[in-house]
Amino acid sequence: MAPLQCLTFRVPMDSPADVSGLAALFDCGALRPDEVAAVLGKTEGNGCVNDFSRGYATVSLRALLVERGLSPDQARRTPMVMSGGVEGGLSPHFVVFATRPAGKPDGEAALAIGVALTRVFEATEVGRMAQVLETARAVRAAMASAAIHSVADVHLVQIKCPLLTQHKLNLAHGRGLAAVTDDTYASMGFSRGASALGVALALEEIEEAALSDAAVCREFGLWSGRASASAGSELDHSEIIVLGNSHAWAGPDQIQHAVMRDGIDVGAVHDILGTFGITPRRQLDEAQMGRIKAVIAKAEPSRDGRIRNSRHIMWDDSDINPTRHARALVGGVLASVIGCTDLFVSGGAEHQGPDGGGPIAIIASRPPA
Amino acid sequence: MAPLQCLTFRVPMDSPADVSGLAALFDCGALRPDEVAAVLGKTEGNGCVNDFSRGYATVSLRALLVERGLSPDQARRTPMVMSGGVEGGLSPHFVVFATRPAGKPDGEAALAIGVALTRVFEATEVGRMAQVLETARAVRAAMASAAIHSVADVHLVQIKCPLLTQHKLNLAHGRGLAAVTDDTYASMGFSRGASALGVALALEEIEEAALSDAAVCREFGLWSGRASASAGSELDHSEIIVLGNSHAWAGPDQIQHAVMRDGIDVGAVHDILGTFGITPRRQLDEAQMGRIKAVIAKAEPSRDGRIRNSRHIMWDDSDINPTRHARALVGGVLASVIGCTDLFVSGGAEHQGPDGGGPIAIIASRPPA
Amino acid sequence: MAPLQCLTFRVPMDSPADVSGLAALFDCGALRPDEVAAVLGKTEGNGCVNDFSRGYATVSLRALLVERGLSPDQARRTPMVMSGGVEGGLSPHFVVFATRPAGKPDGEAALAIGVALTRVFEATEVGRMAQVLETARAVRAAMASAAIHSVADVHLVQIKCPLLTQHKLNLAHGRGLAAVTDDTYASMGFSRGASALGVALALEEIEEAALSDAAVCREFGLWSGRASASAGSELDHSEIIVLGNSHAWAGPDQIQHAVMRDGIDVGAVHDILGTFGITPRRQLDEAQMGRIKAVIAKAEPSRDGRIRNSRHIMWDDSDINPTRHARALVGGVLASVIGCTDLFVSGGAEHQGPDGGGPIAIIASRPPA
Amino acid sequence: MAPLQCLTFRVPMDSPADVSGLAALFDCGALRPDEVAAVLGKTEGNGCVNDFSRGYATVSLRALLVERGLSPDQARRTPMVMSGGVEGGLSPHFVVFATRPAGKPDGEAALAIGVALTRVFEATEVGRMAQVLETARAVRAAMASAAIHSVADVHLVQIKCPLLTQHKLNLAHGRGLAAVTDDTYASMGFSRGASALGVALALEEIEEAALSDAAVCREFGLWSGRASASAGSELDHSEIIVLGNSHAWAGPDQIQHAVMRDGIDVGAVHDILGTFGITPRRQLDEAQMGRIKAVIAKAEPSRDGRIRNSRHIMWDDSDINPTRHARALVGGVLASVIGCTDLFVSGGAEHQGPDGGGPIAIIASRPPA
Repeated sequence: MAPLQCLTFRVPMDSPADVSGLAALFDCGALRPDEVAAVLGKTEGNGCVNDFSRGYATVSLRALLVERGLSPDQARRTPMVMSGGVEGGLSPHFVVFATRPAGKPDGEAALAIGVALTRVFEATEVGRMAQVLETARAVRAAMASAAIHSVADVHLVQIKCPLLTQHKLNLAHGRGLAAVTDDTYASMGFSRGASALGVALALEEIEEAALSDAAVCREFGLWSGRASASAGSELDHSEIIVLGNSHAWAGPDQIQHAVMRDGIDVGAVHDILGTFGITPRRQLDEAQMGRIKAVIAKAEPSRDGRIRNSRHIMWDDSDINPTRHARALVGGVLASVIGCTDLFVSGGAEHQGPDGGGPIAIIASRPPA
Repeated sequence: MAPLQCLTFRVPMDSPADVSGLAALFDCGALRPDEVAAVLGKTEGNGCVNDFSRGYATVSLRALLVERGLSPDQARRTPMVMSGGVEGGLSPHFVVFATRPAGKPDGEAALAIGVALTRVFEATEVGRMAQVLETARAVRAAMASAAIHSVADVHLVQIKCPLLTQHKLNLAHGRGLAAVTDDTYASMGFSRGASALGVALALEEIEEAALSDAAVCREFGLWSGRASASAGSELDHSEIIVLGNSHAWAGPDQIQHAVMRDGIDVGAVHDILGTFGITPRRQLDEAQMGRIKAVIAKAEPSRDGRIRNSRHIMWDDSDINPTRHARALVGGVLASVIGCTDLFVSGGAEHQGPDGGGPIAIIASRPPA
Repeated sequence: MAPLQCLTFRVPMDSPADVSGLAALFDCGALRPDEVAAVLGKTEGNGCVNDFSRGYATVSLRALLVERGLSPDQARRTPMVMSGGVEGGLSPHFVVFATRPAGKPDGEAALAIGVALTRVFEATEVGRMAQVLETARAVRAAMASAAIHSVADVHLVQIKCPLLTQHKLNLAHGRGLAAVTDDTYASMGFSRGASALGVALALEEIEEAALSDAAVCREFGLWSGRASASAGSELDHSEIIVLGNSHAWAGPDQIQHAVMRDGIDVGAVHDILGTFGITPRRQLDEAQMGRIKAVIAKAEPSRDGRIRNSRHIMWDDSDINPTRHARALVGGVLASVIGCTDLFVSGGAEHQGPDGGGPIAIIASRPPA
Repeated sequence: MAPLQCLTFRVPMDSPADVSGLAALFDCGALRPDEVAAVLGKTEGNGCVNDFSRGYATVSLRALLVERGLSPDQARRTPMVMSGGVEGGLSPHFVVFATRPAGKPDGEAALAIGVALTRVFEATEVGRMAQVLETARAVRAAMASAAIHSVADVHLVQIKCPLLTQHKLNLAHGRGLAAVTDDTYASMGFSRGASALGVALALEEIEEAALSDAAVCREFGLWSGRASASAGSELDHSEIIVLGNSHAWAGPDQIQHAVMRDGIDVGAVHDILGTFGITPRRQLDEAQMGRIKAVIAKAEPSRDGRIRNSRHIMWDDSDINPTRHARALVGGVLASVIGCTDLFVSGGAEHQGPDGGGPIAIIASRPPA
């Protein structure tokens, strides 16, 4: 593969339909539509079943790409992983990944990206081994497309996976088939969980023998430290984005990751910053913040209803969904150190990190030599 | 006044009716019912108009005090400032302040507490100068009762103030009277705002000439750096708790405060910790955490919808009230440094700190000599 | 048994703590505290897990009874079935049932009431046969206490049953035990469902052989047309109120019931009104309304997401719980005919009527001879 | 004008992006894209500020029209009035109005439609006389386009009007301008209110002299019995649809209206049905229901917090917005009589009918001669 560079742009969003930030990047020449490799979006819906901000943003972005010259099919094949929910102080934004030909790599591993799609999942496959195995296959395909050859060089696998709507459930029931759950909200967790186990399998964090239908969303000791999955009603297959470092790529940026043990484990953030040679005094200063390209983290309520022995009420709150609380919490914890709020914190970390914690990855420029 | 010591206990709560933690303190002899001077509670309701967790907790606490020997009147006169809302990862808990005779003060100023009640407010007084002036009077009375003679020694004035329920509004309308607002939720802000201006007046942060009915919840350049007000439907007057340091008191603890400039201004926390000689590496370690007795902070969405130039959606979210988002955010920011979640973060910081920020106070033991 | 009369009072409520309506009945001599047999309350919380309006109302009512001369134990043994949720236009209110000695019955069956308590349920029993069987036993005991000898004379069995809080679940997990669900909100449905099956068993609507742990909240073809169950976190046992007609009782009132086939089956209401000789033209007129003492109904979203072939969104809404939508709908349907909004509509009708429908009972005075 | 017929199609919706129902009408030849005159949609968002289901549905419908041959400009000029919120049991659906050349009118007035757009409103104009007057002008233009010459023949004016987002407010503040309110949710009410007063002015229900900036959302004695306004963030001008009966139109359908005095005034529904010669026994039977083409109503909480003297909690609920409760209630009341749930009930009836009530219109086929 000819050397490529992966660029990362953080673009604010005034509403799910607001693509003016990306349009401006096109207009000023910073980016060409055909260079867009994938988009992660933090949109302002509830992040749950009836969150239409995700689909609306996806449609709006794809319309922009077509307006700027991509074919409808090209636009449709560009992964758009929208994660709803900007609770607390999080800021709606897109993280746009672009690839372009680069000069000769400088000998340092650089940020690399690969994408793949799974096939469409049946309602009966969601949350079960069929989804796990197909996801693992697609992760390996995405790694190959990124020229990342060692699983150790993968630092984040971002997945957008489907959920079971009432409509899909009715169709399955009509054919006498049983889904893993009949609760649409619960199905989001199963889909994220199976996706994460697929990542763990592909990245050799877990052996296939340890996995089964029964393990999904039950054996939470099984987890990936690099999976980040979001479920949405706007698609029937999964979209996979693999991010890692590769000597086949060029450019100043790298990605690193760590695992938060719980929702307030700010030490994980410091660990990652340390790998970039960044030591915040209290909060990143302006120069340090300038080196940060994107922060991507998962958030989840601990199942025992405790954070370091103090009770949280996320599971008992029937007005605000647990994932909404968790995103707000982790958003605050990260903003405390990073000093900004356009952070990609997505909720629902089933099999993504330990109970109550989750993976976190940071893309930043390498320290000056 | 004979020397007193003010003790601070943080007590977890399993539900608004759970007073078993305080009962256990009584049972083990750590505390006597007649020593309870005031209680701050972070309860698990929505913190808005129809939050019954506050009244329920208050009733439950008072019933316990009566069961343990206080007269109903004594129980009723003990300030109980319940603040609803433990969004994000915050943990429901009580902060119990107790006073008891102490040996001779050791020459260092020690934590001191004073309480006072305002008279009952008419619906037409809430959010107006009548509430401001009466609050200021009561703050001065509470200072005197705490033997705090200089306003500089006051570090927090916690107030529980009334709101306008639909019932109170109807009564006022029936008499042809206009309240400051006809929106029950909005009335919470007006009541908190007038209370805070009353504190600012008493603490000489603002001159009376600068204040007027029209200034309340409009001229937000006027604020107190030490007021913390919560509104609730369960009372018609205000309860005032003044916390400061005084040479007339004994004991190992002190209180210090700072003002957060915005919702992610973690520097304010570090500033306070610094006055106690505490420098967290990433997060407080166990020994440092052992010195912290209580953390009390205000949270508020910035009015321009921005946090350091990134958009937040707190004002545009019609599913979750703005104060709920703000508490979640500030809770995460504080937990990031303090390393625990039983933090008293209350929402709605009108005239309490600058727009989008708010006062924060920490009670901790003085550094070992 | 010496002849008794069962009186029904509908009392408005300004907040969960407002017992002034009942106090006024005591004050004016309409009712004596020791005559109160049971209270149904429609309180203004969310009707879900973290609804503290139920417990708060119960505590407030019991405090009133004690203040008016009942012993704490008598007050505690008076069933208080609080059902949270007054969505749409429903009005918070209590339905107070009182019994007092009466003259000789006039030969017509009159409204009769019987109450009973179950034993405390373990977390592992909730939603399983243990709860079904113990509930059936208590229903039979309540029938006996009401001198209702035929199951055909029972028209409503109102039950307040426990739910699984996170705390109870943690205790069970700690002992290595599995509850029927680990989701606190879902546990409400299991508890209501097992309670309803217990009623169906006691009223001979279903044979015991048809029942099993696996049937609860799965085999929805099994249902009672006279059960109405509400779950709450404020109790660990169940409270049972049996309402029927008996020749052993005196008084002008009777109770009748029907089953709504779906959420908009207003025909069921007309059927019941017809048994009382009431035919509304468009809506009850004043004279007709004066004969209605109480309306008690269950509401539930249909599982297939449809009402007569049109889609509803109750299951897909992650902001408002399904039972909240269902109560609002049925409240509107009933108010349309009855012409008032202080109707006891409780949500979650698992095994209470057919899918999407539910039992409805009306207490009214018999037609003038 | 050559005789036209106005056809009304009710089309279900599986999600805001689901336009398959309209596509199917095109496919089967029932309707041509260029015949679509206007669409009313009841979408499944929260109906408040951050309801993106409205914009998403609009974009999806316009994309379909373009895909089926309309020019983007034609599609953009077709009024699409999306009203969010299907609380209770309401069903998401579109009401599609189409016009096509017809034979000679038969001497009976037939359903007629006219549309118009206002100019774009400045943030400072929303909720003030500028909006009132421009709306009145556009209503008159729409009447003329419908060949309705007498205001008595207008039975509904449906308006989609803009709201003030935080973004618009910030721009106004930046220019030193004050909007009618700084609360985005409150701005929806002001915009609906000013729109309704514009209708009242155009329909000669109110004289211009009675109107002023100060009257909007304050003098609620001023109202239109035929206005129905919905606010949304997806447009900056207003879209006006006038529906009435005209001898210049042909076809079997007519529209009639009445005014609900309060949220449970089912008599208004019976009144309208009576004008069509329809007398429901308990609920419309199949034949009667077959004659109903569309039901369009407004819902609103009464300002004094009462429905016929019983308290409602719509204003005190900080979890669910008042308009959401009101839609659920009125939806239930209407479904009770009409017997279906695909009813267009929109919330927020400021100056649209009396306090707590609102206009209702029904389109149905004339009785057989």
